[in-house]
Amino acid sequence: MPTITFATGNEGKLSEARQQLEPLGFEIDAYGGGYPEIQADTLEAVARFGLETLAGEVPEPFLLEDAGLFVDALEGFPGVYSSYVFGTLGNEGILSLLADTEDPSARFRSVIGFRVDGEEHTFVGEVEGTITEQARGSAGFGFDPIFQPREAERTFAEMSPEEKIELSHRSRALARLREHLA
Amino acid sequence: MPTITFATGNEGKLSEARQQLEPLGFEIDAYGGGYPEIQADTLEAVARFGLETLAGEVPEPFLLEDAGLFVDALEGFPGVYSSYVFGTLGNEGILSLLADTEDPSARFRSVIGFRVDGEEHTFVGEVEGTITEQARGSAGFGFDPIFQPREAERTFAEMSPEEKIELSHRSRALARLREHLA
Repeated sequence: MPTITFATGNEGKLSEARQQLEPLGFEIDAYGGGYPEIQADTLEAVARFGLETLAGEVPEPFLLEDAGLFVDALEGFPGVYSSYVFGTLGNEGILSLLADTEDPSARFRSVIGFRVDGEEHTFVGEVEGTITEQARGSAGFGFDPIFQPREAERTFAEMSPEEKIELSHRSRALARLREHLA
Repeated sequence: MPTITFATGNEGKLSEARQQLEPLGFEIDAYGGGYPEIQADTLEAVARFGLETLAGEVPEPFLLEDAGLFVDALEGFPGVYSSYVFGTLGNEGILSLLADTEDPSARFRSVIGFRVDGEEHTFVGEVEGTITEQARGSAGFGFDPIFQPREAERTFAEMSPEEKIELSHRSRALARLREHLA
């Protein structure tokens, strides 16, 4: 069975990738050594820098993934720095920044970087939605309690893992990768 | 006259370094090629990564500098991401995040990375102060209008360049480098 290495220390991401790629006949190994993430305007730039850093160090084919929440009224903030901003300001910070705003539009984006035979590809998954007026739900992680996908009446944090996977940016990016592999 | 290369595209930083180091007999050249800044918890980590990336590419001795505003009540936010946060949320964003806060303590920090003969050093400069209730002044740049040093009754943006240099985090870091060189 061909093996793909996933550079991540996140068990949740790993099991989501296995769930989506093993049915195609791939085995997913984890590489937990980490890699530098650069400060950049786009997830794509972060992913490409990661691919270049890991090339030669991690057996190919390998993949990595970066994700973020982009709020329209905040010029895309917190974007590529979502994990840092969640750790410092939390959901309350985003809600207070949006207190006087009429447009709560936002999107979660996921970018997968994939390197095989020295060639690099990126696959994007996106889910449009809105920032809610208050946090709702306790499932998931990060900004899930304040993000409601356009197709849903609940936040990501009010959904079961199975429901969230149906809509999530990450599973959409994995689906693009799956199409590429198939 | 011995030459030090400063890896920056910022004319203001360059002239401040010249002002402080030329009296010691050093000539300051600029390297404008840029370097990747990583996502990290500390300015020191960003500076050290930059030094390692530029080693072999930029003639030694060379220096680089990274700075940020760290707000206590926001767990150090915006910190190493100050320039991105200024571009997205601006001064108003910081003010609205602090609207309900009793403690407006903050500090500007500057870290200089310096590499000479294959050895790396970092020099830190810091200025303690508070975030004001509203923006005041139009000099300087970035978060200067909302930061008032503890020693002053005006914000950085209400000061002349000469006054600001007396107090600034960057000139304090340059002073540490100057002591090292002397």
